[in-house]
Order: sequence, then structure tokens, then C-alpha cells
Amino acid sequence: MEPSASSSSRRLLGIDWGTSNRRAYLVDAAGTCLAERADDQGMLAARPDFAGSFARLLAGLEVGADIPVVASGMVGSAQGWREVPYLDIGVPMEALPDNLVCIDDPHAGRPCLIVPGYAQRGAHVDVMRGEETQLLGAVALGRRDGWFVLPGTHSKWVLLEDGVIRRIATFMTGELFATLSAHGTLAPLMAGDGDDDAAFVAGLDAARRGAPLSNALFGVRARVVTGAMPAAHARSFASGLLVGAEFVAAAGDAPLACIGSDALQGRYARAADHFGMTLSGLDPDRVYCAALARFLDRIST
Amino acid sequence: MEPSASSSSRRLLGIDWGTSNRRAYLVDAAGTCLAERADDQGMLAARPDFAGSFARLLAGLEVGADIPVVASGMVGSAQGWREVPYLDIGVPMEALPDNLVCIDDPHAGRPCLIVPGYAQRGAHVDVMRGEETQLLGAVALGRRDGWFVLPGTHSKWVLLEDGVIRRIATFMTGELFATLSAHGTLAPLMAGDGDDDAAFVAGLDAARRGAPLSNALFGVRARVVTGAMPAAHARSFASGLLVGAEFVAAAGDAPLACIGSDALQGRYARAADHFGMTLSGLDPDRVYCAALARFLDRIST
Repeated sequence: MEPSASSSSRRLLGIDWGTSNRRAYLVDAAGTCLAERADDQGMLAARPDFAGSFARLLAGLEVGADIPVVASGMVGSAQGWREVPYLDIGVPMEALPDNLVCIDDPHAGRPCLIVPGYAQRGAHVDVMRGEETQLLGAVALGRRDGWFVLPGTHSKWVLLEDGVIRRIATFMTGELFATLSAHGTLAPLMAGDGDDDAAFVAGLDAARRGAPLSNALFGVRARVVTGAMPAAHARSFASGLLVGAEFVAAAGDAPLACIGSDALQGRYARAADHFGMTLSGLDPDRVYCAALARFLDRIST
Repeated sequence: MEPSASSSSRRLLGIDWGTSNRRAYLVDAAGTCLAERADDQGMLAARPDFAGSFARLLAGLEVGADIPVVASGMVGSAQGWREVPYLDIGVPMEALPDNLVCIDDPHAGRPCLIVPGYAQRGAHVDVMRGEETQLLGAVALGRRDGWFVLPGTHSKWVLLEDGVIRRIATFMTGELFATLSAHGTLAPLMAGDGDDDAAFVAGLDAARRGAPLSNALFGVRARVVTGAMPAAHARSFASGLLVGAEFVAAAGDAPLACIGSDALQGRYARAADHFGMTLSGLDPDRVYCAALARFLDRIST
């Protein structure tokens, strides 16, 4: 980078490049989002021509050839553009900008970097790729401690202590819900899109009783065929079981923050309240841009 | 029935009529199996013309019009030939023959009866339909106490005390294994048919650590992508997780019997051994025929 460039002219393009979708943010040094673009050119759609997909994204954004790019998410996985090894959770979040990996630059002169994910190893093995960038943003915004939950297809729960990861726990909540809705015994019961708060809470309570999900989920059917629950409540009850399992597993009284859409924050806040926990919300775009400012700061120095 | 018929001439045709398959057994008063026939005309294939499907089965078996028939399983469900209400678990197993339900007889003069399932209600809701007949057979053979596991698509664990059901717990073990093998994140890892004992045991150990299955199952992927486990072991590890969850949930030191195929008995015996439990095997056909003898005894008096 040009050391004499004024701070106000420095910009960075960040790409949250996941499995199915991609979202690009152009930010300035303060992390203010100047432009944003989302498309469905996630890893699965982009491969194997990541360079071409990348070029089309940049052409659409009309960003200058001097703007550095940082990409996070599955783009750095074994099925992505370039596999970037996981960092060990012992590496503090704020050292993440020191560990970006430069890939072959399809646009000469432009730094193009991929963010590594994190892995926890040992008896408990878990990984994340993409969420680490949002967590760095949370840390940059002063949130250095407690549980952070990032709900979705794979809900990530990450416990931070002074900006260092102590635990990663991934729950296949969204995926199991979608799979059970589409295939097998529960699918006919989970049709439709009804949402019932009391049934969701009943599912949370059933999760708290601690039966394995393979047993508790059959309880959805057992309740319906015995008349203990109307079929219209099956979907919300199953959701409560799966979300409740996350809360049951997250022991302790650490503060809890949710990085997710308003709808998901609402759902998780409802569950947190039922489990006697307080959940604060963090906007996914805001934390992502805060992390990008940290990356830009590192690249510029 | 003709009261003067000699004991040796009394016979009964039992039909284990499940969701996908059907198996018929002709037995004498001692429960000796005189003839057996299996086909794929389960509930899903037979409906809506159960009477026609039933007639074709009987024609193939060439049983006289005076032979009574008892059918168990999903044939008595809401999607079956005739919905038969569940018995409450308070009804002793040996009272099951008193609770058979006569359906409209498509062959005049022949008693045609359906076996009700059992339901446990209250905070823990669970049901079974079909397994109760095998359990009655176990009781008839003198096995009145302990856990009985009937592995399969839906593994049933039933706790008996002096021939009375204290607990029904259904685990969607086989269904989840099949679904995860076919759809979603784990499916590519679970391809093939490899079986590795050490990986199965590692799955049992992971189950014992008690994380929710939605989390523990993601550990299959996390282990593979971090190099902690070869992908070829994913299938056995996932099996260990799901089977292990059953054993973790079955607390206490009650004796444990498995009613299932030799292959399944072997798998569950391996798990039982790892959990410090002793598992005895019961042959599914033998217990079914022992139950049929009890039904015949009741019908004949």
C-alpha cells in the first residue's frame, strides 16, 4: 500500500463468501459501509472458476484496482478457492488480521487475502469458518467475553474470554430442522409454516429434560398420534427442541450475545428468556464491517 | 372356535404387518411355527385395499377358513386397515390377548383380530405398535423384567417390571442414520459401507460425553476436516453416536435383552459391553410365535 495515502482515502472490500451466498462490503478505515452487494454466487455456485466469479463481482461494484480485498468463509475451505488452514483457538481474535493468507491475485497489484477459520482440537473437536470475522468485529466493538451465538444452518456457539476463544460448539440446528421437515417420519407433521409460541416453549422444556434428540424428536410424533399435541404445533415444538438443546449445552452464567437477523435474534431471545438468560443482539453487518476496519488497519501498516 | 377341537389341531395365523414389510407365521397351540411367509406388502403398499392384500396373502398360504388371524403393527394405525386405540402402559402385557380388536371379517367365519399398541402419556410421551407383541412373547418365555431393546428404523427401549411396562423410549436411530447418509453436510462423509470397530467405539465415547446430537453429529465433520479422523470412519463413528445415545439414556442396572437380527444383536452387544452392561439376545421369530400361542390360547377359550 501507499504509505502516503490519507486515512480517509483508504478502503477495503470485504467478501463474506459462504457455501450458498456471498455478500460484499466496501468500507472505509472507520468501518463505515460505503457500498454493499449480495448475490447467490456462494462457494457451490462459484467453483471451480473462483477467479472468474470474483472478477464479475468486482466489475459490478466498480471498485478501483488499488482497493485490497479480504474474503472470509467457505471460500477458504478445501472445496473453496484456496484451502487456508484453521488457526488454533489459542490464537487471540485480535491476532486474526496477522494471519490472513494471500492468494494468487487475479488482478495484478491488488492485495487479495483469505481469512482463516479456527479449530478446537482435543477431546472436543469443532471448527468455524466465516464466523471468526464477525467475532473479531464483536471484539473490536468491545465485546471480549461471554457466549456468542450465530444461529443458522449450523448454529455456532463461541465462548470468549478476554478476546480468546475457549470453546466452539456447532449445532446442526437449521440443517436438521430442514432435513426432518423434508424427509421421514416427522415431515408430514412439520409441513406448513405455522409458528406457535406455546409449542416452541414446550419444545424448550422437553429439551431441558435432557433426553437425546433422537428420542425427543420422536416425541413430536408420539404427542400427535396420542392427541397430546395438534399436528399444527409439531413444527414449533421441533424448533424448540433443537434450539433448546443449544441452550442446555451452554452451561454457566456467561453473558450471551446473538449475531443474527432480527428474526433469529427474536427467536433466540425468547429461548434465552425461558432459560433465565439475557441475550443481547449484535447486527451481523455492523460486526462484519468492524472486523474489516481491523483488516484494513493491518494491511495499511 | 369348536371347543371339542383337540389341542393339536388348533392353529393361528399371525401377521407382523409393519410399515414396509409383512411377515406371516402359522403356529400351533405350543407356538411352534408350521409355516412362514414374508413379503413387501407392508401398510404403505397394501393401502387402501387391505382386504384384498390380506386375501392374497391367505391364498398363498393355503390356510383353512377356520384358522383365526391376528395382525400386529402399523396395520392398526390411523393409516392402517383399522385404527385401534393404544392401550395405556398400565395394562399388563399378559392382558394384551384380552384387548384384541375384531375387524370386519373379509372371510366369513374367520376371527380376524388386530393387536393394539401401547402409549405412555404424561410428561414423557411415547408409543409403540407391533413391538408389544414381541414383548408379550418375551414375557411368555419368562422374561418379565428389565430393558428390552428392539433396534431398527425406530429403536424401541421398553422397561418391564414384572410384566408391566414402566417406560417406552423410541430413538429414531435407523431413520436418522439413513437420512444423514443421504442428505446434507454429513452425507458425502458417510458414503460407502465401511465398518470400523474403533470408530464405532469412539462414537460411543462421544455419546457418553453427553453433548446434544445436533452438536455431536457435527463433530463427525469437524474431526474429518481437522484430520482427527479419516472420512472412511465417519459412518461407524456416527453409528456409535446414535447407538450410544440410546445406552446413555437407559440408566440403571436393569438387565438388558435385545430382540433383533443377529447382526443388530451383535452391534448392540458391542455397545452394551463398552458401557459395562450385559446384553442377552432373543430371537424375534421365537418371541413372536410365543405371543401368538398366547393369543391362540385366549381365542380358543
